[in-house]
Amino acid sequence: MARIVMKFGGTSMAGIERIRSVAARVKREVEAGNQVAVVVSAMAGETDRLVGFCREASALYDPREYDVVVSAGEQVTSGLLAIALQAIGVPARSWLGWQLPIHTDEAFAKARIGTIDTAALDASLSAGEVAVIPGFQGVAEGGRITTLGRGGSDTSAVAVAAAMGAERCDIYTDVDGVYTTDPRIVPRARKLHQVTYEEMLELASVGAKVLQTRSVGLAMKEGVRVQVLSSFTGPDAPMADTLPGTMIVGEEEIEAVERQVITGIAHDKNEAKITLTRVPDKPGAVAAIFAPLADANINVDMIIQNIAHQAGQAGPGSTDVTFTVPGADLARSIDALNGAQGEIGFAELVHDTRVAKISVVGVGMRSHAGVASQMFTTLGQRGINIQAISTSEIKVSVLIHEDETELAVRVLHTAYGLDAEAA
Amino acid sequence: MARIVMKFGGTSMAGIERIRSVAARVKREVEAGNQVAVVVSAMAGETDRLVGFCREASALYDPREYDVVVSAGEQVTSGLLAIALQAIGVPARSWLGWQLPIHTDEAFAKARIGTIDTAALDASLSAGEVAVIPGFQGVAEGGRITTLGRGGSDTSAVAVAAAMGAERCDIYTDVDGVYTTDPRIVPRARKLHQVTYEEMLELASVGAKVLQTRSVGLAMKEGVRVQVLSSFTGPDAPMADTLPGTMIVGEEEIEAVERQVITGIAHDKNEAKITLTRVPDKPGAVAAIFAPLADANINVDMIIQNIAHQAGQAGPGSTDVTFTVPGADLARSIDALNGAQGEIGFAELVHDTRVAKISVVGVGMRSHAGVASQMFTTLGQRGINIQAISTSEIKVSVLIHEDETELAVRVLHTAYGLDAEAA
Repeated sequence: MARIVMKFGGTSMAGIERIRSVAARVKREVEAGNQVAVVVSAMAGETDRLVGFCREASALYDPREYDVVVSAGEQVTSGLLAIALQAIGVPARSWLGWQLPIHTDEAFAKARIGTIDTAALDASLSAGEVAVIPGFQGVAEGGRITTLGRGGSDTSAVAVAAAMGAERCDIYTDVDGVYTTDPRIVPRARKLHQVTYEEMLELASVGAKVLQTRSVGLAMKEGVRVQVLSSFTGPDAPMADTLPGTMIVGEEEIEAVERQVITGIAHDKNEAKITLTRVPDKPGAVAAIFAPLADANINVDMIIQNIAHQAGQAGPGSTDVTFTVPGADLARSIDALNGAQGEIGFAELVHDTRVAKISVVGVGMRSHAGVASQMFTTLGQRGINIQAISTSEIKVSVLIHEDETELAVRVLHTAYGLDAEAA
Repeated sequence: MARIVMKFGGTSMAGIERIRSVAARVKREVEAGNQVAVVVSAMAGETDRLVGFCREASALYDPREYDVVVSAGEQVTSGLLAIALQAIGVPARSWLGWQLPIHTDEAFAKARIGTIDTAALDASLSAGEVAVIPGFQGVAEGGRITTLGRGGSDTSAVAVAAAMGAERCDIYTDVDGVYTTDPRIVPRARKLHQVTYEEMLELASVGAKVLQTRSVGLAMKEGVRVQVLSSFTGPDAPMADTLPGTMIVGEEEIEAVERQVITGIAHDKNEAKITLTRVPDKPGAVAAIFAPLADANINVDMIIQNIAHQAGQAGPGSTDVTFTVPGADLARSIDALNGAQGEIGFAELVHDTRVAKISVVGVGMRSHAGVASQMFTTLGQRGINIQAISTSEIKVSVLIHEDETELAVRVLHTAYGLDAEAA
């Protein structure tokens, strides 16, 4: 008898009619002979409402009390789903974070899951009950409620799947899977049947917002097979028979026939570019730039250092340094750098938010040379200027002008052979 | 250092502005040198919303899951009040029912409080923290959440006050105290400074809806001094300095100067009168009437048996039996009685919902004769017909026509010397 975890987001839990649809979907898995745990989010909008109350009560709210307040949203939906399951003849009970318990550290409002006790859960599943578990919550050692931070329900689902040895963890979302790229930009984008954890991490962190990144990292560490699939056939339609989604698995599981050099193309317009001109060309100069940013907890992404200006009568040699930071951190970055202008010794700080990062991702590039070269050639042929480049083992990213985002994604999608056959 | 419990209802918790007013009121008690526990209700309307979800999910909802859902309302307000207290410099923390814990039996959705562990609570209060405790909830032996039934937060407050040895339990409500009668009927009704537990029970059960009856019974049993006072000066005004309310205490605490024969006059229009005609006048006949009503869990209140019709040629002697039941149970009562017509042997069932029960209540009548007589005379002088009478040690009740309710209350209020001096 296989064990599976099913996770439903806030849109799927928004109101009793939708909760009933979820119950019907769960019943099908039970009738297929599975032992099922369901992890649920709060009703869409509810967590925002509760967070709003906390902020209104005090801008500097105590995160321990915040967790008491916001965890109530998932408590409500877990009880309601248990009732809806019982109403269609499926034995079910809710297990709150402190009841299982799901142990976490004491980082209130952004806790990390430690261990999950499974004795009671095992007994309940073996007795034929569906376990309904509120996502996003746990309990700290002292017995106080914790929450995992926004989007933490995906992580809860993967952690529960790992603890109970589930065959897979099905994440029902607003999208029906992971695509080769954003279908709003490329109508001929294809849904991927399989994708590796590493690729999913790269695709998620560069803009394909399907799963919380933390949950993918945990799934990789614990070897939990995750499936992303749609809870709706249309934006407001009740959940019908679900089409197969995308399986996120280890590289060894990817079927040979599925293997391609490039799995997907992501874009991210939330980067900002900063250039410091005439930084002295001497040891320690680059460290002087990035230390104040690290102190301000700002993640620097792409870094390029131009050819040095030659030393001469005008003084010692110097160089321009360009890098990107998250757009939301731009103002703080400028403050930090200007505050350190004396130590760094740059002439001018130039910034630009009208940039986009385009990434091609695929585990196949480990064994295929020429991926980066093909990317640069393709973009160059269309006159798209590359402002910065960064690479990892399974990803090549370039920074371009924001206005060229859609063009770049489309030509690359075609160039790497990702376009679906015309219907 | 005195310990007190403060309890705030849903109207006082309806929104952050009001929660801030509550926090300010709590701060005053802390600054007066008291150790304070606060028991809170859910935001006004929230419990109805959550109950509505449960009913929509299934008419026959599991009360264990219902308790998981509806207890979330008080969880939210307890966290928010703790945040609001901290924001004005008052150390505070929330203690959920399962955290203290507040042990209850396993009668989910209508649980009764057993014991309350006070070790953690004592430590917290002694450390100078305000303890914020959600009303209405507890935890059963197996570790599942329970709720006490609607209005249970008053009972929570009294139980917490008893457990922590509080000097008094202040219940902040929409009214500013207990009155000699309904001020909407008698503008010269007076607010009582003190009232005994027994009187409060009689006044509450016959219509003066201020406190949940169960909480008064518990206060009497545990000797908890309860004060009813207003959280508002006007229906929507923020809580200002609170006027003294009404203390509910043991009879021995009532000051001699306060003692009156009659404390208050209550009315209740929610009764229905049933008359069964020509019930055989023989042993066991009355038992045959009330057994089916008891089986249907219907509380019969006033009972009168008319003079028997004489036995003669028409058959054995017979009698008419009249009694009252709660108006909400009338239909079920008629069904039960008609179903037993064979055993009872009555001729006709006549019912009347246009009746009202008027009660005069006072511990003083124990030592004063003539209270009932004065009541009958006063009503008779105004031509008000009495349809039934019942008495207890501290109460005389009569059943009259509904249209005469206000007149009866006014003339009795004057006759027993309860009218306030004209201002």
